[in-house]
Amino acid sequence: MLKLHGIALSNYYNIVKQAMLEKGIAFEEVSAPPSQDMSFLAKSPMGKIPCIETPEGFLSESLAIAEYLEETHPTPSLLPGDAYQRAKTREIIKCAELYLDGPARRLLGHVIFGAPLSQQAHEEVRPALEKGMAALKRMARFDPWVAGSEFSLADIALLHIMGLVLAITKPVYDWDMLEQEPELADWMQRAAAREHSQTVIAAQQKVRDAMAKKS
Amino acid sequence: MLKLHGIALSNYYNIVKQAMLEKGIAFEEVSAPPSQDMSFLAKSPMGKIPCIETPEGFLSESLAIAEYLEETHPTPSLLPGDAYQRAKTREIIKCAELYLDGPARRLLGHVIFGAPLSQQAHEEVRPALEKGMAALKRMARFDPWVAGSEFSLADIALLHIMGLVLAITKPVYDWDMLEQEPELADWMQRAAAREHSQTVIAAQQKVRDAMAKKS
Repeated sequence: MLKLHGIALSNYYNIVKQAMLEKGIAFEEVSAPPSQDMSFLAKSPMGKIPCIETPEGFLSESLAIAEYLEETHPTPSLLPGDAYQRAKTREIIKCAELYLDGPARRLLGHVIFGAPLSQQAHEEVRPALEKGMAALKRMARFDPWVAGSEFSLADIALLHIMGLVLAITKPVYDWDMLEQEPELADWMQRAAAREHSQTVIAAQQKVRDAMAKKS
Repeated sequence: MLKLHGIALSNYYNIVKQAMLEKGIAFEEVSAPPSQDMSFLAKSPMGKIPCIETPEGFLSESLAIAEYLEETHPTPSLLPGDAYQRAKTREIIKCAELYLDGPARRLLGHVIFGAPLSQQAHEEVRPALEKGMAALKRMARFDPWVAGSEFSLADIALLHIMGLVLAITKPVYDWDMLEQEPELADWMQRAAAREHSQTVIAAQQKVRDAMAKKS
C-alpha cells in the first residue's frame, strides 16, 4: 500500500492526499515533519513534505507525485482527456504553485511560526500576489470547475494553495482576496464543499487547533 | 505548424526549443520579449516567455508545454516508459526549476541587465543554491544521463538551467560550481555536446554577443 509521509498542516501534503482520496487509492498516512536529517533527505531530497513511499521507492515533489498517481491510477482521471485541455489544466496548476503559493510562502514563517516579519517580503508579496491573481483570472474558467466542466487536479491544487494564501494575506495585510473576486469565492465554496475536501480540511484544522492550544 | 514565441536569451525558451528539436517537431520561432501588454498577456497570462501557439490556442509555462509536446509527439520520448522512472525524472526537473533556477534568477536582473545588487539576495542565493545542488546530487544518476540510461527532458531542463546558474554564480560569487562537482561537469560536457544542444546554445550566445556590443 502507498504511504504518504508528511503532516496535514502542509497544503502540498493535502493536495496529494486529496488526489489519492478522489482516486480511491488505498494509502496509509505516516506523520513526518519536514527535516534536514540525512535519513529523511534520503526519502525527500530537499527535506520537504510530502513524499510518498511506493513499492519501487520514495518519491517527492507533490506535482511529480500527482502525475505519478494519474499514470498508475488513471480512473477516475484528474486531468482532461484532450492534450491541449490537459496542458491548460497544468498551466493553471503552475500558476497557483509559482505565482500564488510561491510569494505567499515567504510570509509563512511569520504567520504560522511567529518569525520576525521581513520588511522586504512585506513590501513585495502583496504586489506579487496581485499579479498572480490577475494571471489566474486570465486562465480560470470556473465553469463550474477552475479548468472547465470537469473537476481536476487544478481544483485540488488551487483549493489548498488558496487556503494558504488566505491564511497569510488576512493577518498580514488585512486583505480579503475573496471579497474582490466573487467568481473565485463561489468556486472556492463549491470546491471546499466536496466530501474529500472536507475530510482533508478538517484534518488540517485539527493540527492548527492543536498548535493554537500549545502556543 | 507550432509557433514558439520568446527569445533565445531565455533558458526556458531554450528548454522548449530543444525539446521540439529532439522530437523533430516542425516549428517556427516568433521573436517576442516578455511583456505586460494586454495583447501579450492574452497569450501568456504572466507575460513570461516562452509560450507556444497551437492550432487550439496559446499555451504558456515551459514544463506544461513540455508535457504537451510529449503527449502530442510521443516519439522519440523524452520521458522513460516506466511510471516510477517518469516520476523520478519529473522530480529532478522540479528540483532544477525550483531550487536551482529559482534562487539564481533573483540575481538575473543584476547580472544581465545591470540592476543594483540586493544585499539580501546576495546573502540568501548562495546557500539556497548549495542546498539545491545537494538535493540534485541525491537524485541525479549521471549514468550517463541525469535520470539514468536514457536522455530525457531532465537533461534538457538541467542543461539550460545550469547555464543560467553558472552565468550568475561566476560573476557574483566568483564561484565555479562545476569545479566542485566533477560528475556534474562531465555530464554537462556530454549534454552540451549533443547536436541540438549546440544549435540552441549557439543561438543564445548570438543574442548575448549582440547585447554585449550594444552596452
